[in-house]
Amino acid sequence: MELTDPTIFTARRERLRAVMAAKNLPALLVTFAANRYYLSGFELADSQCNESVGWLIVLPSGPTGGRDLLMTDARFTEAAKRLWPQEDTLIYGAGKHAELAKILRGRGVSALGYDPRAVNVFDYDALREHFELVPVGGVVEELRRIKEPAELDLLRASCGLNHHVMRALTDVLVPGMTETEAAWQIERLFREAGAEGLSFPSIVGVNQNAALPHAIPGETKIRQESLVLVDAGCRLAAYCSDQTRTYWVGREPSERFQDTKRLVQAAQKAAMAVIRPGVAFADAYAAARRVFEDAGVARQFTHSLGHGIGLETHEGPSLSPRAQGVFAPGMVVTVEPGLYDAAWGGVRWEFMVAVTPDGCAPL
Amino acid sequence: MELTDPTIFTARRERLRAVMAAKNLPALLVTFAANRYYLSGFELADSQCNESVGWLIVLPSGPTGGRDLLMTDARFTEAAKRLWPQEDTLIYGAGKHAELAKILRGRGVSALGYDPRAVNVFDYDALREHFELVPVGGVVEELRRIKEPAELDLLRASCGLNHHVMRALTDVLVPGMTETEAAWQIERLFREAGAEGLSFPSIVGVNQNAALPHAIPGETKIRQESLVLVDAGCRLAAYCSDQTRTYWVGREPSERFQDTKRLVQAAQKAAMAVIRPGVAFADAYAAARRVFEDAGVARQFTHSLGHGIGLETHEGPSLSPRAQGVFAPGMVVTVEPGLYDAAWGGVRWEFMVAVTPDGCAPL
Repeated sequence: MELTDPTIFTARRERLRAVMAAKNLPALLVTFAANRYYLSGFELADSQCNESVGWLIVLPSGPTGGRDLLMTDARFTEAAKRLWPQEDTLIYGAGKHAELAKILRGRGVSALGYDPRAVNVFDYDALREHFELVPVGGVVEELRRIKEPAELDLLRASCGLNHHVMRALTDVLVPGMTETEAAWQIERLFREAGAEGLSFPSIVGVNQNAALPHAIPGETKIRQESLVLVDAGCRLAAYCSDQTRTYWVGREPSERFQDTKRLVQAAQKAAMAVIRPGVAFADAYAAARRVFEDAGVARQFTHSLGHGIGLETHEGPSLSPRAQGVFAPGMVVTVEPGLYDAAWGGVRWEFMVAVTPDGCAPL
Repeated sequence: MELTDPTIFTARRERLRAVMAAKNLPALLVTFAANRYYLSGFELADSQCNESVGWLIVLPSGPTGGRDLLMTDARFTEAAKRLWPQEDTLIYGAGKHAELAKILRGRGVSALGYDPRAVNVFDYDALREHFELVPVGGVVEELRRIKEPAELDLLRASCGLNHHVMRALTDVLVPGMTETEAAWQIERLFREAGAEGLSFPSIVGVNQNAALPHAIPGETKIRQESLVLVDAGCRLAAYCSDQTRTYWVGREPSERFQDTKRLVQAAQKAAMAVIRPGVAFADAYAAARRVFEDAGVARQFTHSLGHGIGLETHEGPSLSPRAQGVFAPGMVVTVEPGLYDAAWGGVRWEFMVAVTPDGCAPL
């Protein structure tokens, strides 16, 4: 199910090359894992955050255009071979910066674009002994914001599993179950429905714990008449889903829970009503916040409205009050207002929506 | 079960402060997630590799020593409050570098040590507008190499779950099962035995796929009379385990499999026989390699012998042929020689061993 047709990745690199040419950029060093995968199909994730499994160098149009270089270490020799021409693959040892420089000089490349947020100071210092380095952030991320039809299908499928799990939780969450146990049941449901794994560690917060927007599930037990916030998602064919629901376990949801949930859902609806191509990201946030302001609870809305989602759970655009830019067709974002009170708990409600030519539609 | 006693983290910061004083270092900026957790107990992992959930600044001995600063964003306000004095916590917005500078100037700090491998160029450029930046890599990692008794207990418990799973796999791996299905069974076994999760995505490689040292499980099915390489581990109370076994599914292991396994286990044994305090890391690698050289197959041993393990699956020391340094009591490393042939498959065997005062002992 994962996208494996090599022409998809070639086409993306050609789109990137066109952007590079328009911006008069030199060859581009791609270090960030999700960008590398998006452009090459090689390894979605690094071994650890501090352990890269390889870089991609996209060459500008011209005599060497298209002969982009994939570099990795010996552990991934076979994996690279299955994907990339051997003459354009560098299996590096300890001196990877110098080895890269030698090959690229042979292709007439002496300047490299790089993302200052995705290159550490150590690599920067080593690279600048060989190259002119040109800072250029977010070029690949910019392409990734607009999902291709095949990506929309995969995001829809990933979100479909998410709906399935959120529905099933109505029966799964019962008094006596700890947050940790609930988190494991959530993971089982995702995996048994076909997910490759979670897209992030599930958040399960009972009562006051729901007030921590990034609560780690613990030994707190669900009791009769309690609220349970679940924020969870999976990866399916490499694409992430991410939704939040806040459940009531018991016979009779408290009035405060019902009121809070009603407000949060109204804020979500208000935001979704304004999302359409050309509208500023910050206006979507403002639409949700206005609902909370009118009810005098805006101070309890402590985070941004949402974020783009795709190969990463969190990617561009951010729907924060300070966000720059406007919606465009093909973007997929979460819409997840919440209200929190450390002494009581919290309610968050999260959908994934795709921006359409004239509005947005929940996945 | 997780280490939560605040005195553990205070004691680690005091040990770090002593190292900082001895090396005449200024305040130390701790950005890398595992280091931050090791020194503070705050959030073991970042949200994503490109999305930090906070930094820790350890101040040097002197008037402000001990009033170390934890900085995070609003999502983690409550989590920080449960752990850190509010007057030493910075909940930052968009201008985090300037906000940090303002507080630290108030504490007489104008220079910051930082790890060039753990700070990206963007943050570096923003920080150097406010601070003198002093590159100093690996100071916290150096402390983390020597495990405290409580850490050894947790690593033993984590590895204990691993042994349980590896034993269970003898019955679980059956003809008809795909690598993906096997990987999910492995995860279930770990989780149902109490693990928080996997420490890395499991590697399951059938026959030729076992020749990829970092194979992603796919739709290849186990058949009667095939070899299956499993490299898997879990997190228990934050500590990682990591072991590899290569199974034969069927009635009669092939002669090649048996011979290869015998060689790999002999190499592992040879390495473990030399590991003791004072011995060079590279000598452990050499001892394993010599066994393969004597058998004329050294070219099929394509990776290093092992790596340290603790809060991360891969941490120092590395047991590569180029590694500098010597073993010391309290280190925990993997010993994992392997032999690979793309046309046939591969065998790897991996133990975790703790360095003792006079040798090493498998966990």
